[in-house]
Amino acid sequence: MPELPHAMMKTPGFSFALEATDGDARAGTLVTPHAVVETPTFMPVGTQGSVKGITAEEVAATGAGIVLGNTYHLWLRPGAEVVKALGGLHRFTRWPRAMLTDSGGFQVFSLAGLRAIDDDGVTFRSHLDGSARRMTPEESVRVQGLLGADIAMAFDECPPGDADRDVIRRAMDRTTAWAARCLAVERPPAQALFGIVQGGIHEDLRHEHLQAIGAMPFDGVALGGLSVGEATADMHRTLAAVTPAMPGDRPRYLMGVGAPRDLIAGALAGVDMFDCVLPTRNARNGQCLTWSGRVNIKQARNRLDAGPIDPRCDGPCCNGGGGTYSRAYLRHLYVAGEMVALRVMSIHNVHFRVTLMRRMREAIKAGRAAAFARETLDAMREGDEVGPADPASGRPAGAPAPRPARR
Amino acid sequence: MPELPHAMMKTPGFSFALEATDGDARAGTLVTPHAVVETPTFMPVGTQGSVKGITAEEVAATGAGIVLGNTYHLWLRPGAEVVKALGGLHRFTRWPRAMLTDSGGFQVFSLAGLRAIDDDGVTFRSHLDGSARRMTPEESVRVQGLLGADIAMAFDECPPGDADRDVIRRAMDRTTAWAARCLAVERPPAQALFGIVQGGIHEDLRHEHLQAIGAMPFDGVALGGLSVGEATADMHRTLAAVTPAMPGDRPRYLMGVGAPRDLIAGALAGVDMFDCVLPTRNARNGQCLTWSGRVNIKQARNRLDAGPIDPRCDGPCCNGGGGTYSRAYLRHLYVAGEMVALRVMSIHNVHFRVTLMRRMREAIKAGRAAAFARETLDAMREGDEVGPADPASGRPAGAPAPRPARR
Repeated sequence: MPELPHAMMKTPGFSFALEATDGDARAGTLVTPHAVVETPTFMPVGTQGSVKGITAEEVAATGAGIVLGNTYHLWLRPGAEVVKALGGLHRFTRWPRAMLTDSGGFQVFSLAGLRAIDDDGVTFRSHLDGSARRMTPEESVRVQGLLGADIAMAFDECPPGDADRDVIRRAMDRTTAWAARCLAVERPPAQALFGIVQGGIHEDLRHEHLQAIGAMPFDGVALGGLSVGEATADMHRTLAAVTPAMPGDRPRYLMGVGAPRDLIAGALAGVDMFDCVLPTRNARNGQCLTWSGRVNIKQARNRLDAGPIDPRCDGPCCNGGGGTYSRAYLRHLYVAGEMVALRVMSIHNVHFRVTLMRRMREAIKAGRAAAFARETLDAMREGDEVGPADPASGRPAGAPAPRPARR
Repeated sequence: MPELPHAMMKTPGFSFALEATDGDARAGTLVTPHAVVETPTFMPVGTQGSVKGITAEEVAATGAGIVLGNTYHLWLRPGAEVVKALGGLHRFTRWPRAMLTDSGGFQVFSLAGLRAIDDDGVTFRSHLDGSARRMTPEESVRVQGLLGADIAMAFDECPPGDADRDVIRRAMDRTTAWAARCLAVERPPAQALFGIVQGGIHEDLRHEHLQAIGAMPFDGVALGGLSVGEATADMHRTLAAVTPAMPGDRPRYLMGVGAPRDLIAGALAGVDMFDCVLPTRNARNGQCLTWSGRVNIKQARNRLDAGPIDPRCDGPCCNGGGGTYSRAYLRHLYVAGEMVALRVMSIHNVHFRVTLMRRMREAIKAGRAAAFARETLDAMREGDEVGPADPASGRPAGAPAPRPARR
């Protein structure tokens, strides 16, 4: 699609440049006021102003250059005015690098039964105290301005993965109207704003909505409404068909996606940015990613294992500077309910994804993105210690369906 | 009491030397195979092989030179043989400095209703799975040998704080007999063994038992059976009367004590070593110690406070290297249930106690131990943000009685 004249991208301190392409895959550089971020990149999620269990220093030590904060949660608690009074979200949370806030839309629309949508916005009940709250495009941009991240997101309507075409089309139209309202709100001069494309797994709807959102003067364009319950194959097909048509001169962000095969499929299709809560959520369930497949730390095989989670990992908890945490020690701590187990496995899982995207970037620059993807996924499949994945869901065979892992 | 000939202290790599005294207070140096520890010293407790929520590196950054591990917990899970197979407790837990293990006695005797004591040992049910287990003096020393700490403790009978004189005397006699059996067990050549003096708050019983235990060739002598529910004034009176009579050439250890006023009273009486779970337990309740008194992080007054927990603290989370955590951020994280709040407050509370003992040591060497004690306690009382303490219990007025904080 046509690229926007640069005059329309008016956020000072914010720019994006491509360094290399390999097929549809891209290696780029995202400049923000707080950090220069090399893409493709994985963003850990700090839902309530903290990547669960991990300090800002530890997140930085994984190599992450940008973190996501959740507007919905921070708006309700401690309140955007409190964060603003304390110097904004960077200062409040001690995170020195780049930061992105979502719009709050995904959380609000996840409150099934607690909300009422109209064309102006959404009325819902707080999950904390049941109080009535109202979110509109204007309020979302205002709140994100108070939080003061480098990148804000437009307020969108995110329908469930199994929604009818008609429902998805109505959500697209509303999202387009709300996108224009978001752009009309004054925000901090150095804060970028990204638009969000909906359309489910319907390629024609995705292209139609991309035309509308891509024509607006957003600093970047995101794909919302994926990884919300649809089959993996449908998500990958949609990514491959839609991503290359996204504006090439602006960063492309796939929201709420963090399984390795999805990160790889997204990067191959040309996505630049990803976020997901899976690294910390998996850690709470005892699961770690390795270059040889998934590990369940609870397994008896780890009881006497003096080796690290992953002998091939150069992260701070395996073979990097900090000294090895043995599988045996982590298993003991996990079984005993000790917090340090969750910390270490969370750091490991964030580091793995950040490194996966860094290596993908190197592969793109070397012109071997597809080969890297194939070799990496093959090695992970073969060494998987938690059983073969169900090809449709990616879950271990027989595992219960998870709630959507988006945030 | 008479000092033992040095030939009786036969543990290689272990020694204790006094550097200065000030009244009954002592500043000394405890040499162990893994670290030289300056005394008086506070030992954080790593019950299950982890000081709750804190990594070994973070414990070291508080200045702590020695950590306590709980034999009872590690014996049941992961098992002493597992720890041994993984290189011992130091290597298993990644703690490079000195380590002490308790005997398991306190935990076993805390299992009221689940245990049966006889002269040979104790039969009880595991708190984990209800299985029948048996602990004897021999088994305790054997297990501690497998764990491999620098210092092991003799297996004692610890009666409750409200026990009758007769019950306490029977426990003393049993503890004396068990002490001899502990000494008769072969243990790793570089592992020291401390004896434990019982006697409740009865000064005559304490002196009587001290004669018995002090005459045995232990590398150090501990006071058990304090801070188990008795009034603070009774504990302090007992400490002042008994501690100066403990062997002067060996380290003196007051078990399970960690409230600042008790650390100070103990050090003034001549105690060299303390341990307590309070730093991490208080953190889980939102309480922090400061040089101006206790702080409850949950209080609304902290909502917009950009300052550190304690402006006068040079610890890693206040003004030390790591960058300040604001009270406002910690309050938010605590209220939101985020683990990082517990981590930071736990580090702070350990650092406070380690620093309190370091400053007491400096005061002893400067001949102003009593003045330091008075000034420190006055400042903490005056600035206390959680309400005046009940003078008997030390608890905030109206606060419910806590369970014993010993471990």
